Amino acid sequence: VTPLSQEDELIAWLRRRLARAPGGDLAGDDAALLPARPASAAWAATVDSQIAGVHAPPGLDPAVLARRLLAVNLSDLAAVGAAPAYALAALAAPPGYDRRRFLGALVAACARAGVTLAGGDLVRAEVPAATLTLFGSRPAGGAWLRRSAARAGHRLWLGGTVGESAAGRHLLARGARLAGRRVDLPAAPPLAGSLAAAARRAVRRHLAPAPQLALGRALGRLAARRRGGVGGVIDVSDGLALDLARLCRASGVGAEVEVERLPAAPRFHGLAAAIDRDPLELALGGGEDYVLLFTLDPRLAPPAEFRCRRIGAVTAGRRLTMIDRRGRRPLPVVGWDHLDPAGGE
Amino acid sequence: VTPLSQEDELIAWLRRRLARAPGGDLAGDDAALLPARPASAAWAATVDSQIAGVHAPPGLDPAVLARRLLAVNLSDLAAVGAAPAYALAALAAPPGYDRRRFLGALVAACARAGVTLAGGDLVRAEVPAATLTLFGSRPAGGAWLRRSAARAGHRLWLGGTVGESAAGRHLLARGARLAGRRVDLPAAPPLAGSLAAAARRAVRRHLAPAPQLALGRALGRLAARRRGGVGGVIDVSDGLALDLARLCRASGVGAEVEVERLPAAPRFHGLAAAIDRDPLELALGGGEDYVLLFTLDPRLAPPAEFRCRRIGAVTAGRRLTMIDRRGRRPLPVVGWDHLDPAGGE
Repeated sequence: VTPLSQEDELIAWLRRRLARAPGGDLAGDDAALLPARPASAAWAATVDSQIAGVHAPPGLDPAVLARRLLAVNLSDLAAVGAAPAYALAALAAPPGYDRRRFLGALVAACARAGVTLAGGDLVRAEVPAATLTLFGSRPAGGAWLRRSAARAGHRLWLGGTVGESAAGRHLLARGARLAGRRVDLPAAPPLAGSLAAAARRAVRRHLAPAPQLALGRALGRLAARRRGGVGGVIDVSDGLALDLARLCRASGVGAEVEVERLPAAPRFHGLAAAIDRDPLELALGGGEDYVLLFTLDPRLAPPAEFRCRRIGAVTAGRRLTMIDRRGRRPLPVVGWDHLDPAGGE
Repeated sequence: VTPLSQEDELIAWLRRRLARAPGGDLAGDDAALLPARPASAAWAATVDSQIAGVHAPPGLDPAVLARRLLAVNLSDLAAVGAAPAYALAALAAPPGYDRRRFLGALVAACARAGVTLAGGDLVRAEVPAATLTLFGSRPAGGAWLRRSAARAGHRLWLGGTVGESAAGRHLLARGARLAGRRVDLPAAPPLAGSLAAAARRAVRRHLAPAPQLALGRALGRLAARRRGGVGGVIDVSDGLALDLARLCRASGVGAEVEVERLPAAPRFHGLAAAIDRDPLELALGGGEDYVLLFTLDPRLAPPAEFRCRRIGAVTAGRRLTMIDRRGRRPLPVVGWDHLDPAGGE
């Protein structure tokens, strides 16, 4: 089996190790499901880090970093259908870092999300790095969603647009800045009118992603009512193609993606051209979209309010295929490899 | 109220912030107690980081870092009387870091401790930094232990020796190295015979602390049988004086410490002299001892097998006093301030 990325290779190695350890388990969903007795009291738990210079531009406002840290963790809970409940925060930062601004923003964002900040760890480090552990409970009337439940014949759905966040990352690398609620764009490339508006939205989308918790809960209710009807669910964090490959591998299936169905933000193609990027590469491999990718029995559809888009189908076999005007070809498994020294793109 | 340290000051500020947020809570025990329905299924959760160059010598064997990371988190669970159950690991490391050695050692150590590694996060960073979140359940027949339950009239107990770990840290700073199971001592100061043996034990104690889980569970059983008999419990991580001050502040009490009762490792005073350190300063403020500090009703005692030492008493009022041959004087609140740029010592 070819590893999808250095990260996946390491996780596969770890899973083999764990299989030999007594009690070992690493199911590989976006959040771990911690069993309890009775099972109704089980928790979903997830951990994610944001490191300055890696996940966020150096010098980013600590409040923006805090909200982004919570958002990416909430997205993992959304992918298992959990309702967020508790957080533990670990903040490592150099002297002079505005920890109060970080923690104040985290507390406020937690309160808005119904999360209780229950503990944490504060340490010194050269580079600001924040790690959040988030616990979610299973909502009444809901079922846990798993990455491994995709079945051949299911339809493949996407909860929102892809590629916009990566366009925002490129703009930040070129000098875009968030100043309060205002986004200052770099001088190059020159952007005006609706393209400048699209660029500002892309930067905001990258720095302040909106996790799809309500969609996750709706899928959890659907899964509880129609056993087997809701298939694999994953949040698109490392790139649509890579996360689809993970979902398919966990479920033992393949998939076909109809490229022209991929939802894009308004003026996305024009923006991609302006920053000299292939829009399809951004959509398939850009990552950090934080939308849910999921499969459903063809007789089911997600609630219309979420405006999900059907982008393809789950197939027997293990192949990943993309379909466009030119025909069918293998889907390149591109995405963000957290362990690739070159940056993963 | 004078802040105990920059870290305590920031946590106090955060607690005030949380008190205004709906659902906010930060009880400040070593592990957060996450309520569930039914209450018997509640979890204790804790998070702690180990950062190369801050908590561990740069270049430390990744396997040693992994075991230390688990040990310091287990010590927090010991302090609330929990039985460890699940872990989530976040590892940030530069290219070339031996992640498999780290994760392999973590898996093996988790298995020995009865912990299931259930998830995590792997990212790139300039400096190795590992964060572990650990979940513990309440053992049958046990009660949760709290930092805030010390009462005037209780006796003050210590689960093991203090100061040895800090001596080990000084030896590491002077060039001591762990090579497999062997400890290589630095050329200066010259140490031989029983002093060299004491130095090797100190280095091992620092790098491979032994969390007092069995003692924590025994105190939890005692607390379940004798309501109010078991008082405040905390693990000594930042220094006996600072952690005692935290326990007393959480409980609204004071304490007297009989300095000559403080348990010390064999040849500790000779070792402190050889490395030119005041043994009392090491014992009171050295930190990273990972022994339990707790208070008990005077009619109770911890099980003899744990060889705990009575070191003083809890008093009314808020004063912290030390008693030695010269008489009584204020206990200096010395310890490891994680947010002090000078290093906290």
